[in-house]
Amino acid sequence: MTSPDLTHLLAVARGDATADLLLRNARLVNVFSGEIYPADVAVAGSRIAGVGDGYDAVDVVDLDGRFLAPGFIDAHVHVESGMVPPSEFARAVVPRGVTTVVTDPHEIANVHGLAGIRFMIEDAKGAPLTMFVNASSCVPATHMGTAGATLGADDLATLLDEPDVLGLAEVMNFPGVVFGDPHVLAKLRAFADRVIDGHCPGLTGKHLSAYVSAGISSDHECTTVEEAREKLRLGMTVFLREATNARNLHSLLPLVSAATERRLCFCTDDRQPSDLLEQGSVDHPIRLAIAAGVPPVTAIRMATLNTAEHFRLRDRGAIAPGRRADLVALDDLDRLWPSRVYVGGRLEAQDGVLLRARRSGTSTGTLGNSVRVDWERVSLRVPAAAGRIRVIGVVPDQIVTRHEVLVPTVEDGLVVADPERDLLKMAVIERHGHGSGVGLGFVTGIGLARGAIASTVAHDHHNIVVIGADDRSMLTAARAVADGGGGQAAAAGDRVLALLPLPIAGLMSDLPIEEVRDRMTALIGAAASLGSRLHDPFMAMAFLALEVIPSLKLTDRGLVDVERFDFVPLFAS
Amino acid sequence: MTSPDLTHLLAVARGDATADLLLRNARLVNVFSGEIYPADVAVAGSRIAGVGDGYDAVDVVDLDGRFLAPGFIDAHVHVESGMVPPSEFARAVVPRGVTTVVTDPHEIANVHGLAGIRFMIEDAKGAPLTMFVNASSCVPATHMGTAGATLGADDLATLLDEPDVLGLAEVMNFPGVVFGDPHVLAKLRAFADRVIDGHCPGLTGKHLSAYVSAGISSDHECTTVEEAREKLRLGMTVFLREATNARNLHSLLPLVSAATERRLCFCTDDRQPSDLLEQGSVDHPIRLAIAAGVPPVTAIRMATLNTAEHFRLRDRGAIAPGRRADLVALDDLDRLWPSRVYVGGRLEAQDGVLLRARRSGTSTGTLGNSVRVDWERVSLRVPAAAGRIRVIGVVPDQIVTRHEVLVPTVEDGLVVADPERDLLKMAVIERHGHGSGVGLGFVTGIGLARGAIASTVAHDHHNIVVIGADDRSMLTAARAVADGGGGQAAAAGDRVLALLPLPIAGLMSDLPIEEVRDRMTALIGAAASLGSRLHDPFMAMAFLALEVIPSLKLTDRGLVDVERFDFVPLFAS
Repeated sequence: MTSPDLTHLLAVARGDATADLLLRNARLVNVFSGEIYPADVAVAGSRIAGVGDGYDAVDVVDLDGRFLAPGFIDAHVHVESGMVPPSEFARAVVPRGVTTVVTDPHEIANVHGLAGIRFMIEDAKGAPLTMFVNASSCVPATHMGTAGATLGADDLATLLDEPDVLGLAEVMNFPGVVFGDPHVLAKLRAFADRVIDGHCPGLTGKHLSAYVSAGISSDHECTTVEEAREKLRLGMTVFLREATNARNLHSLLPLVSAATERRLCFCTDDRQPSDLLEQGSVDHPIRLAIAAGVPPVTAIRMATLNTAEHFRLRDRGAIAPGRRADLVALDDLDRLWPSRVYVGGRLEAQDGVLLRARRSGTSTGTLGNSVRVDWERVSLRVPAAAGRIRVIGVVPDQIVTRHEVLVPTVEDGLVVADPERDLLKMAVIERHGHGSGVGLGFVTGIGLARGAIASTVAHDHHNIVVIGADDRSMLTAARAVADGGGGQAAAAGDRVLALLPLPIAGLMSDLPIEEVRDRMTALIGAAASLGSRLHDPFMAMAFLALEVIPSLKLTDRGLVDVERFDFVPLFAS
Repeated sequence: MTSPDLTHLLAVARGDATADLLLRNARLVNVFSGEIYPADVAVAGSRIAGVGDGYDAVDVVDLDGRFLAPGFIDAHVHVESGMVPPSEFARAVVPRGVTTVVTDPHEIANVHGLAGIRFMIEDAKGAPLTMFVNASSCVPATHMGTAGATLGADDLATLLDEPDVLGLAEVMNFPGVVFGDPHVLAKLRAFADRVIDGHCPGLTGKHLSAYVSAGISSDHECTTVEEAREKLRLGMTVFLREATNARNLHSLLPLVSAATERRLCFCTDDRQPSDLLEQGSVDHPIRLAIAAGVPPVTAIRMATLNTAEHFRLRDRGAIAPGRRADLVALDDLDRLWPSRVYVGGRLEAQDGVLLRARRSGTSTGTLGNSVRVDWERVSLRVPAAAGRIRVIGVVPDQIVTRHEVLVPTVEDGLVVADPERDLLKMAVIERHGHGSGVGLGFVTGIGLARGAIASTVAHDHHNIVVIGADDRSMLTAARAVADGGGGQAAAAGDRVLALLPLPIAGLMSDLPIEEVRDRMTALIGAAASLGSRLHDPFMAMAFLALEVIPSLKLTDRGLVDVERFDFVPLFAS
């Protein structure tokens, strides 16, 4: 619905003109006063006109005592982790009551730069949710790997005129902030009048004071109450995160109190299709919080008004005249099941299903194929040398790794994978058209007995990462994902066992999210058939190239000792 | 102090550079977390750099366990009611811990228009407090009286570029909003991206929904919990007012709870010099609230963080790195006595006294003499006619009046004052140079036995208002205030008994505020010597010309029946 003219809105509000929609017999969840009470809500176009009795409307809906809450807001999400573009992401989250998300498109930005960010903004247009964008502050994460783009302060500043761009996304380079790196400060200055979100796991004391003094006003990386309390005391808004691979909610819930809750929000950060479809989006932490004893109005306020206020969104986050009619009718406050979801005054979802037809044929638009590898230059051979080798040790369900030093298995003068020792070869193949450099290493903890798995989803540079028991399988898997313009694959020998094409930046599919989930299940099944012992080896693999998370990682440029923040040779000597 | 460069601020925050100021051994009042705990606060220039241990500074002050709170913020004040310009107003309020005020300069705007508003902004520059301005939305209040200026949407929009202008001040013309008056909507549209403050006593139901739907986000006119709760439920921020002539705090305190307090602030609206000096400014309602049982951190938060957030002031309202070092060291949380007040990192007041010397010789600058009366055209004679007359009935300590109909006292064919019946003549003499029209009427309840009192402070048009027992005394008093370029006077016959010159717009003195108070005391004493039974007849008189407050009022254009919102003749039939 379009935004009504103020004259008409006033006429509807005072009862002199007929409303477009009247939601009768609601139990209003009032996030301003902390109350729940019976009320009717009148809507004109996309806006709430009045709250109270005696309105007439073209469309009168009797909510029969259902709870009516403001649409939920996800404070921080990388939509790309849902492996579908925003328009399809909306199909999964809007029926859950999520009507607004604040996204940092830094996965696609690492592949396509500003064009990737603009692709996300364009794709979200016309979708039945509002996707606000924070400009990705750390592209690339470091220069120890090769990304598809580099975004400086001047590049990011070109986004300031976009109406859906709010501010600067998670400033992960916290040492750069604390120690005043001029490139980082230039970005902060460019966004000084906007919201600047943080990302500073474990930062404390004076360094935290410095980080906050720079104007960074949130953090979603807290893992303990003590850490969160220190940040909250300095005025940061703390986003309680419940991601697929980082579930911090229960650890942080003891912080929620009447005195603190106004600076607490919920976010999902990264959620995979299966979690989105089966557990939900930001509705999931609300539900968990209520189940854990947080008063329902408080939990809902944390996902609505608090988030809106943090992001200076004065047109939403509550049910009040003049605000957007983003409204969720809930059968109860336990299951938090939305029977109806209105977005901008329009009924968009009912009983868990989006009402509008799926947008067909999302394409990569002007982005084109993002996978550019010169296979002639790709070799996976690792010549043997004297001594032991550094091996990446996978820790189940964590993105940190162990830095192990093991005796290599050598055949014909080459270091090779040795599945019997759970020693697999890993390669990171540059795929952004910058020379197809290959980083080579070894990994333990994935557990393939044979074959290989490959993916173009490999944080944050998103090169091709491949792990396998033999080079032939590895090349088969790697070429399979490359041939699809990106994707994930499992292969054995010359045979591709399972494939999920991700033609959009090598990160997202153009299939329905349910089919993406099913193909991911098939991929994990294929990996299991090859001997993997992890519940999701693709997820584990996606973080083995992320050189900002300890301890030992592999990029296209080589092995990185994260503690030393520098490259190290394969052979430990 | 100047704002530090970010690079230097970071260096101080992380401990690599020496702070300018360190406040040690504070008990920090943390308005984010609701806690009070020991801490040190390091300051660089005008900003807080760090909160925590181990900082060094050029100037180290041991607070010896004193409470350290953020500087207090007055959410809504007409500085002119203090009868001194902003620079002198600061002398009274800064030692009280008030470091920021949000003012609506609509008194001076009714006299001098935009030039008056800019005079206030200029005068506040260099004063030891921040005075933010909201553009006066209702100048003049109505067209039933003659003001010195008319401010349309285009005029107000010229203020948008002023860095100290926040938004639009109290939109008192609530019928104009509700019924969509195009001139009112033009002002709302001009300030649509800014804070728009409200003023809607008693507005309820659909009309309140309409008012809120227009984007008006606060109200300071609530007198009951029920009224305030309805407004709060619709998302308005409610300012609890404790003015000289409207004391609403205790009526509204039952609304304060953990669930509601974040949308509650304090304001003073109008405080006269004696109240400012003896009770205080916005520190007074904080103190009263604490005495009434509101938790101290909550009461302080209502006057700091809440107000800052309402006005989108992200640089103040709390003690945190990067925010302004507006800090109040308090001996206790009962008397709330500030032993030290820092404004922008600089010690400005100590033990109730402003440290810097009073600025000498505030002049009217380019404003000039605001009183322009053509005395040749002024006649106070009221020819008699048949029937009874309408008489304004003063209600002690209220600004509403009774509409009485009494038999006139007639002498020589003229209606005259009759002090024995407490029937005094009242005149409102246009003084803005628009023809010196005179409105004439009669008033009961002031109680002068003889003589007259006059004032150029007469809301909202601020013409000369004069009340007396005889025309000669009235003209003496009126000419006395006019001759001083504005003021207040008491006279008997040809003799001026007491005079307070108010050369700045006829509203403000250039004397020290203590002397203004003393002269007001003398004026009230003089009025008492003439027989006045009111504790402040000048205050009462100042509202008898305000044609938007029921029931019967007198402007320079005649008697106004406020219920009918139209002029009525003196003779009732």
